[in-house]
Amino acid sequence: MSGTIHGVGLGPGAQDLMSVRADRLIRQARHIAYFRKAGRPGHARRIVEGMLRPDAVEFAMEYPVTTEIPFSDPRYNACLAPFYADCAAHLHGLAMQGEDVVVLCEGDPFFYGSFMHLHSRLSARAPVQIVPGITGMSGAWTASGMPISWGDDVLTVLMATLSEEELVRRIRDTNALVVMKIGRNLAKLRRAVESAGRRDCAWLVEYATMADQRVTPLAQAEAVTGYFSILLIHGQGRRP
Amino acid sequence: MSGTIHGVGLGPGAQDLMSVRADRLIRQARHIAYFRKAGRPGHARRIVEGMLRPDAVEFAMEYPVTTEIPFSDPRYNACLAPFYADCAAHLHGLAMQGEDVVVLCEGDPFFYGSFMHLHSRLSARAPVQIVPGITGMSGAWTASGMPISWGDDVLTVLMATLSEEELVRRIRDTNALVVMKIGRNLAKLRRAVESAGRRDCAWLVEYATMADQRVTPLAQAEAVTGYFSILLIHGQGRRP
Repeated sequence: MSGTIHGVGLGPGAQDLMSVRADRLIRQARHIAYFRKAGRPGHARRIVEGMLRPDAVEFAMEYPVTTEIPFSDPRYNACLAPFYADCAAHLHGLAMQGEDVVVLCEGDPFFYGSFMHLHSRLSARAPVQIVPGITGMSGAWTASGMPISWGDDVLTVLMATLSEEELVRRIRDTNALVVMKIGRNLAKLRRAVESAGRRDCAWLVEYATMADQRVTPLAQAEAVTGYFSILLIHGQGRRP
Repeated sequence: MSGTIHGVGLGPGAQDLMSVRADRLIRQARHIAYFRKAGRPGHARRIVEGMLRPDAVEFAMEYPVTTEIPFSDPRYNACLAPFYADCAAHLHGLAMQGEDVVVLCEGDPFFYGSFMHLHSRLSARAPVQIVPGITGMSGAWTASGMPISWGDDVLTVLMATLSEEELVRRIRDTNALVVMKIGRNLAKLRRAVESAGRRDCAWLVEYATMADQRVTPLAQAEAVTGYFSILLIHGQGRRP
């Protein structure tokens, strides 16, 4: 009897915004795994603080590299592929011993998440169950106090890692917009939003749903906190 | 002291996929409001079955029209605007009496939701709080068993109510795709996916996360259940 590997969405950050199912799985889990940057407590782990069983066994999966090497550099994949393979092998080993494991996933596991790289290596070899979560972008538009999309609005989700030209083209061609992975791409993104003529309706949301939540007009933003910043342009579609 | 109107996201359908915060608010609520089609129990109401206080006061907001009149017909707005105004007035009245009200919202309240039409009428006049939820599309890609978007993938969310030409153009120009509001637009959507050359990677997901969940290759789909069907094309982006 093999155990099950659960990829559990934690939602945008506030502990009580995880699902009832996620809450139950996390509180019951004997084995908990999560990604983190080396030397940091890890944001996923921080979200579940106070929820774990006293005898929970934790497996921290520390990225060998995060933003030090650009994605486009072949060393990025060369470095991450064996890391994901090792993590998957460890989780697979636990499952084969009959142990269930909960893997903590910020946001929603199947939406631009690191867990996907484990899922692709595990799903044919062990039972894997996914618990969806509230995405970081839902947290962001909730924080902004305005609906993101109405009626027939087209919503486009972009990564700020795209080229400036591509960003401009796509920002021009959508009603509602979400941009993630901003970090060091802020200056480029700001130029793209301006070129697309939408500077005055763009908002930057940081740490949505968390204690230090902040919503700033893009025009006034000077820097962003890498991982937790999301840019929004709200749709203006049909509204009776 | 006025009460607070809570727009509470219920998530995609399974009761335990609502957030812990939503669960708590719904179980404590003295006043519960929800939209439904006239003569139906209402899907939002069905999700919370068994959770309400015995003395909960329910306010069912019955759409005067749903799909009988096309959105483009001026009678659609003429019919819905006073309906939303009446609903908002009722909720406002409760808040002014000091009562808190929980408005049940399928999915996420600020993502193509009917509650937005109450929010826009209420937010300047009474305290309104939003609890985000897991979107129907997250439920759908979880049901499909495959991540929706990787690396730098562009994700586009479209309504099948757009013109066929516009659908083709946008389906060609995205990595990952979500289409909602399919219902009677299935034949048009299928032609658009085929014209865009993506027939063989498109999936139709119905009743995601619910008992009668179904995932079908678009090529094999003959009809869909109007409201709960979502079309997906999964992105194939960078994966170490």
